Amino acid sequence: MTDFNLPGLVNAHSHAFQRAMAGLAEHQTDPADSFWTWREQMYRYAGLIEPDDLQAIAAQLYVEMLKSGYTAVCEFHYLHHQRDGRPYADAAAMSRALIAAANETGIDLCLLPVLYMQGGFDGRALSARQRRFGHEVDAFLRLVETLRRDESDALQIGIALHSLRAVPPEAMHAVLAAESERDRPIHIHIAEQQAEVDECLALRGTRPVAWLLDHAEVDARWTLVHATHLSAPEVQALANSEATVCLCPTTEANLGDGLFPMPEYVAAHGGFSIGSDSHISVSPVEELRLLEYGQRLRLQRRCIAVGAEEKSVGRFLFDQSLAGGHRSAGARIAANASRITLDVAHPLLAARSDSEMLDTWIFSGNVPLVRDVSVRGRDVVRDGHHIDEERIARRYIETVRRWSQR
Amino acid sequence: MTDFNLPGLVNAHSHAFQRAMAGLAEHQTDPADSFWTWREQMYRYAGLIEPDDLQAIAAQLYVEMLKSGYTAVCEFHYLHHQRDGRPYADAAAMSRALIAAANETGIDLCLLPVLYMQGGFDGRALSARQRRFGHEVDAFLRLVETLRRDESDALQIGIALHSLRAVPPEAMHAVLAAESERDRPIHIHIAEQQAEVDECLALRGTRPVAWLLDHAEVDARWTLVHATHLSAPEVQALANSEATVCLCPTTEANLGDGLFPMPEYVAAHGGFSIGSDSHISVSPVEELRLLEYGQRLRLQRRCIAVGAEEKSVGRFLFDQSLAGGHRSAGARIAANASRITLDVAHPLLAARSDSEMLDTWIFSGNVPLVRDVSVRGRDVVRDGHHIDEERIARRYIETVRRWSQR
Repeated sequence: MTDFNLPGLVNAHSHAFQRAMAGLAEHQTDPADSFWTWREQMYRYAGLIEPDDLQAIAAQLYVEMLKSGYTAVCEFHYLHHQRDGRPYADAAAMSRALIAAANETGIDLCLLPVLYMQGGFDGRALSARQRRFGHEVDAFLRLVETLRRDESDALQIGIALHSLRAVPPEAMHAVLAAESERDRPIHIHIAEQQAEVDECLALRGTRPVAWLLDHAEVDARWTLVHATHLSAPEVQALANSEATVCLCPTTEANLGDGLFPMPEYVAAHGGFSIGSDSHISVSPVEELRLLEYGQRLRLQRRCIAVGAEEKSVGRFLFDQSLAGGHRSAGARIAANASRITLDVAHPLLAARSDSEMLDTWIFSGNVPLVRDVSVRGRDVVRDGHHIDEERIARRYIETVRRWSQR
Repeated sequence: MTDFNLPGLVNAHSHAFQRAMAGLAEHQTDPADSFWTWREQMYRYAGLIEPDDLQAIAAQLYVEMLKSGYTAVCEFHYLHHQRDGRPYADAAAMSRALIAAANETGIDLCLLPVLYMQGGFDGRALSARQRRFGHEVDAFLRLVETLRRDESDALQIGIALHSLRAVPPEAMHAVLAAESERDRPIHIHIAEQQAEVDECLALRGTRPVAWLLDHAEVDARWTLVHATHLSAPEVQALANSEATVCLCPTTEANLGDGLFPMPEYVAAHGGFSIGSDSHISVSPVEELRLLEYGQRLRLQRRCIAVGAEEKSVGRFLFDQSLAGGHRSAGARIAANASRITLDVAHPLLAARSDSEMLDTWIFSGNVPLVRDVSVRGRDVVRDGHHIDEERIARRYIETVRRWSQR
């Protein structure tokens, strides 16, 4: 039997440090637990992390990503400063920790330094726990320029606006003006929670996606992360913009965000990528499967995400999320060669034709079926093991044990 | 670090042969694809299978179950006869194939021979593809009695009614009368699809669960599989009956069934078990996680399935599905000792306290974290490998390759 190879997928939305808290926010703290009570737990965790910790966690996470079939990651990176909110001596120290983790594991990185300025649409100041995230526009642009000196085949530096609620309109315009001549990815969290939609309606008189499309030149450089809550006109306008929507199905389920109007958006020829976001799961097949399953549960039908010609759900989801991931990560990374090789000797795949392979990989469960992974010609996963996984796991365990033993 | 042990879970609903078609029904055959178009594909597959094939498939599946943390399985077994509908020379040949697969892998088996008599509520005859499933009541009861001669610590023989639509009321009463003095599990598929509810309302004037509760003495012996579509009075009456609801979240998502009213049922103190059913995934953690995630998406909240005192979602889901699984599988199997040992040296678990372990196991992804499994004192999984997995995988691969090469 010959090998079955695929290009590697892009994990288009990652907050690497959150991998270390996977499973720690699954106990009820309030009968009305929600995204917002989760966020307080996440902030507490974010408060623990120093640059060396971030590298240790991110490297472990990137090993897991590579083993699962992701060969590139977009880091939506807002954990910039010291615990008291002052910049590190090297203002890019946290960014460099992520770059170092990508380098040592071999994954391609689109690093998106995040602009985060205020605590809500009303312009309130950052809370004590948000101070590690904050920048004025000038300092933010300096960080971006500093990091761009190190761009390479394996490293793209885009930018991100945390969300409409965290970035005032004038700051958004200043950053976008500075970025206007650049062909770099621009990401933003948007319309993830109904409360955000309601607040935007109350304070800006329109819904978040509609507001963004009205106030920025949203084009193919843009990735809108989540975009869960959309009106029908927003679905159409967003698809027309040529922006990419990054869907994070496992996190959106874990956080109770709601369901994106997938079939409507696909019918409007909208493009999408996928991300594991909070990393309560690290698996492209679980993201893609849950993306389809959410729609099946919503509509009480089957085999929903297909194209006009492509009737295999697995093939359609793979091809679309691959193309969308390349847009989310930018041209530099999209140009790189990557290869994942499925384990066709595994009982689950052993009797599948090539045309059945993707459906089976995505819709047959949780057993690891990626055998080998290569990025830019470098074999980083062989026979299911990353080439440096033992050292990286040891360092990760030492890091997280320190917190648990306090 | 000391081991972290748990009792093994019961997979309370399995159609073993369907594991071999995982991934083969994920291409659109009709824009209105549904459970009903899926069922035609499944019937085509069922038509291929002979007793030796069934043993090969079930053994591979049971190996996967044991490795994922299930130590017992309830087989809802309706594939009884030869392709033309005539019984095999040994009318129990297919049942014996499942028993042999359980024996060789070491999993505890609650075998539920299924009574299947008609093609719908209107009493229409079985279709050509359903003929392998059919029995008259007398022949069905003879099969059950024959199989009960072989009951043992590891083998419980319950009974199942396929569904209200497949069993006429008088046949149901006859079988339940014969079973009335027995303390054995009784399973039934019910209210999985809205179309079934609609047909029951049209032809019997009431909803399926309400009809069953009115026409049978539903008690703690009963497992109602799916029960997806329930009215508020049905939720309360079902919880009061002390029956167990078997939820199959991955299959119910894959088939677009809809979402069970979990928080309402838990508030009414209803008990539940879990099953992997069509086996498009074989993992208790994915079942439990998706059970909770479906509710989070429906209600746009977090941490929903908890008890009055137990606030860990993972602990609550584990304990409840363990207790419910023991009821679904019956007292004989519930009395057996089983143990699964998590791999506490794995980076994901290495820094978790005992109280965090279940949340982390269930809510951190897809990496196999079960290290060792023991059933009735026999070590069947060691260091992540089943003791006979290579032989069983080879036989499985030969079996499914035969079909793919035609």
